[in-house]
Amino acid sequence: MKTQINRDELKNMETRYRANLVNSLGGFKSVVLVGTRDENGQENLAIFSSLFHLGANPALCGLIIRPDVSERHTLHNIEKMGSYTVNHLHKDIAIKAHQTSARYTKEQSEFEQVGLTPEYKEGIIAPFVGESEVRFACELRQKINLEINGTILLIGEIVNIELPENVLKSTGYIDIEGAGTITCSGLDAYHATEKLFQLSYAKPDLWPQQIS
Amino acid sequence: MKTQINRDELKNMETRYRANLVNSLGGFKSVVLVGTRDENGQENLAIFSSLFHLGANPALCGLIIRPDVSERHTLHNIEKMGSYTVNHLHKDIAIKAHQTSARYTKEQSEFEQVGLTPEYKEGIIAPFVGESEVRFACELRQKINLEINGTILLIGEIVNIELPENVLKSTGYIDIEGAGTITCSGLDAYHATEKLFQLSYAKPDLWPQQIS
Repeated sequence: MKTQINRDELKNMETRYRANLVNSLGGFKSVVLVGTRDENGQENLAIFSSLFHLGANPALCGLIIRPDVSERHTLHNIEKMGSYTVNHLHKDIAIKAHQTSARYTKEQSEFEQVGLTPEYKEGIIAPFVGESEVRFACELRQKINLEINGTILLIGEIVNIELPENVLKSTGYIDIEGAGTITCSGLDAYHATEKLFQLSYAKPDLWPQQIS
Repeated sequence: MKTQINRDELKNMETRYRANLVNSLGGFKSVVLVGTRDENGQENLAIFSSLFHLGANPALCGLIIRPDVSERHTLHNIEKMGSYTVNHLHKDIAIKAHQTSARYTKEQSEFEQVGLTPEYKEGIIAPFVGESEVRFACELRQKINLEINGTILLIGEIVNIELPENVLKSTGYIDIEGAGTITCSGLDAYHATEKLFQLSYAKPDLWPQQIS
């Protein structure tokens, strides 16, 4: 049996129920830890499931920020310092990563509160997560206020990448599953993945072939 | 061993290699089929891995469109008709879905070319994919040109949802894994998922509990 939900039913739903529903409707999401620090060196770490690929040349990614308390520290730090890191999650750090979404004060570093290690690289202002396998640093390029719902789109340029040598394939593809990267659905569900297939470039006169 | 890639190395990479690298760097992505039709009733179906959740109230999602040939038909139809459908993929339709990215002409319907079934609902202009389990219809609310790289952000309001009854949980969470929804990485890799855990709402003084 199929359930149908129309626009009026969506509008009249209990807030938390609707948040769960709409957050899971868009499909599986990237889930990452964003590391920042402020002008006084105060570190911040926050989990986000709103990172998306925007383009490869220049290498850009988008991040949607909601104007509520827990995400405001990240926004402040990115605007102030122009630098942030994006750190993939693997199974062993997922619960710690989830815990960064608790409403800690600005004076509390989530690194310290949840037990993850800030790690710095020369030339990069923001801290990486020491325990993360695939990670990269971004510089803020543009901030767009999405007036339709008060969220903010931050566009960052990828300026530094670090990943385990063995997951970088000859084509440039990163075997993020091989690196243990996980995905999420809704607001609170975490999933490992199992590769089905990788397919050849699609052409009108040829059916896709499995290339791995 | 870790591989390090800096900004200059990224800039000087061979185009296809960089596309593979940066597309897989952002983590796992939502992968969906977007169904549209034009003012003459010509149907179009295209695979996208750039859909993201934007907000629950109003229920909004974003879609990044690149100005190349294969995505132009979708863009034209959404702008002209204001309506599009988003259809989750499961394993059995993934190869057909991938094949929609081949450069068919405007007169060719990808539904027909790859063997998927257009399905219409009262009050919704765009066609759904009959074979998809979780699907929803959107109305275009805003188009934003991202001048930084020439891509386009389409913001749509979710106006109709259909999903199998048994995957909608009492909290509003949709068990998309239970519905068979898959995820993707890079430009051409498809993955099934395996749920690790669902965690309780994070509070500063309490460690997350597994709620399922």
